[in-house]
Amino acid sequence: MDVEHPILELIRRRATVERFDPDRGLDEQSIRELVSEATRAPSSFNIQHWRFVAVRRPEDKQRLFEAAYGQEQVRDAAVTFIILGDLRGVERLPGIMQTAVERGALPQGKASAWIDMANKIYADRGLARDEAIRSASLAAMTMMLVAQARGLASGALSGFDPQRLRREFDIDERHVPVMLLAVGHPVETVASRMPRLELSEVLAFDRWTESTSKN
Amino acid sequence: MDVEHPILELIRRRATVERFDPDRGLDEQSIRELVSEATRAPSSFNIQHWRFVAVRRPEDKQRLFEAAYGQEQVRDAAVTFIILGDLRGVERLPGIMQTAVERGALPQGKASAWIDMANKIYADRGLARDEAIRSASLAAMTMMLVAQARGLASGALSGFDPQRLRREFDIDERHVPVMLLAVGHPVETVASRMPRLELSEVLAFDRWTESTSKN
Repeated sequence: MDVEHPILELIRRRATVERFDPDRGLDEQSIRELVSEATRAPSSFNIQHWRFVAVRRPEDKQRLFEAAYGQEQVRDAAVTFIILGDLRGVERLPGIMQTAVERGALPQGKASAWIDMANKIYADRGLARDEAIRSASLAAMTMMLVAQARGLASGALSGFDPQRLRREFDIDERHVPVMLLAVGHPVETVASRMPRLELSEVLAFDRWTESTSKN
Repeated sequence: MDVEHPILELIRRRATVERFDPDRGLDEQSIRELVSEATRAPSSFNIQHWRFVAVRRPEDKQRLFEAAYGQEQVRDAAVTFIILGDLRGVERLPGIMQTAVERGALPQGKASAWIDMANKIYADRGLARDEAIRSASLAAMTMMLVAQARGLASGALSGFDPQRLRREFDIDERHVPVMLLAVGHPVETVASRMPRLELSEVLAFDRWTESTSKN
């Protein structure tokens, strides 16, 4: 391609933001759109393990702030999403597949085969948990880029007290908290981007090589 | 915003592709660029747990095909990445922080505090594994969108035999295979997109609600 797609510039420009403007909120429609775009991400068998709790009200943000070891972005951002993964997502697959068949996205035979396969794989609770984390993360990354494209900034946080988070936000055992994602208007227009490892340190061709991992 | 950023259209258009043109490859420079862009994703403390093995040669693709239960996209795609997560990524943090300080991206005091904090958190092997999966997934999602922006297509696969994969591609115990990502030229120009759950089924405001999860 001669002309670069604008997403490449957007990806390079994105950085984790820690300081948000506490005076600028985000309306409910904008929050819905962020989630709607984020859930365009793929997931295993299209199970869509991702779930979102949008925390916006000052008193709820305060409780989230306390569960997140006092990280201020949680309180200052317009909204912080608690991104969850459904550990029993596969139970919803028959309904999901029925919709897909009805809309002509998948033939019935393939849908039935997928349900059988998925049930076998995700009977293993460890694999089910891994997939819940994976799917929720794919949606989270999509949301960070969507936020950036909409002139917002974001900051992902994995540091929080899971038990306190569960208690404060009524999160049942079925759902694993995967990350917090603060979204809002940044204070600084330019966030500092952290340097990345050299390509030779993360990429190997044809087989994994010790030299790569030991750099 | 009056004019939508082109990434939104790109996210809506992206779909998991299963059929790639086996006759169209991808040169090494393009593969390097895909990884370089993908690693713009964020990670906890900037540890960058992601690692990539680019599988391109017919004999290697054949071995990957067999480890992936005969899923043809692995053999047909120009390249399939084995995306790994480094379970001991935190051990590299001092070097990563030193570079960040040298380049002025972070003050020394904060870098030292981050190293202490990260060492405490990731002494828990379960948390270290979760984070390896999360970070690798964030990079994977970024790569899918970069591929799309470059006129390529992608298909993520989580179905593979991890032991066989380890053996065939020299993957040590330090690294967890997170997913396979096939990237190449699609056969069809329009891939079928699977319908998504209704927003009300995945999004709750202020606290998690049973009604959402039971839909």
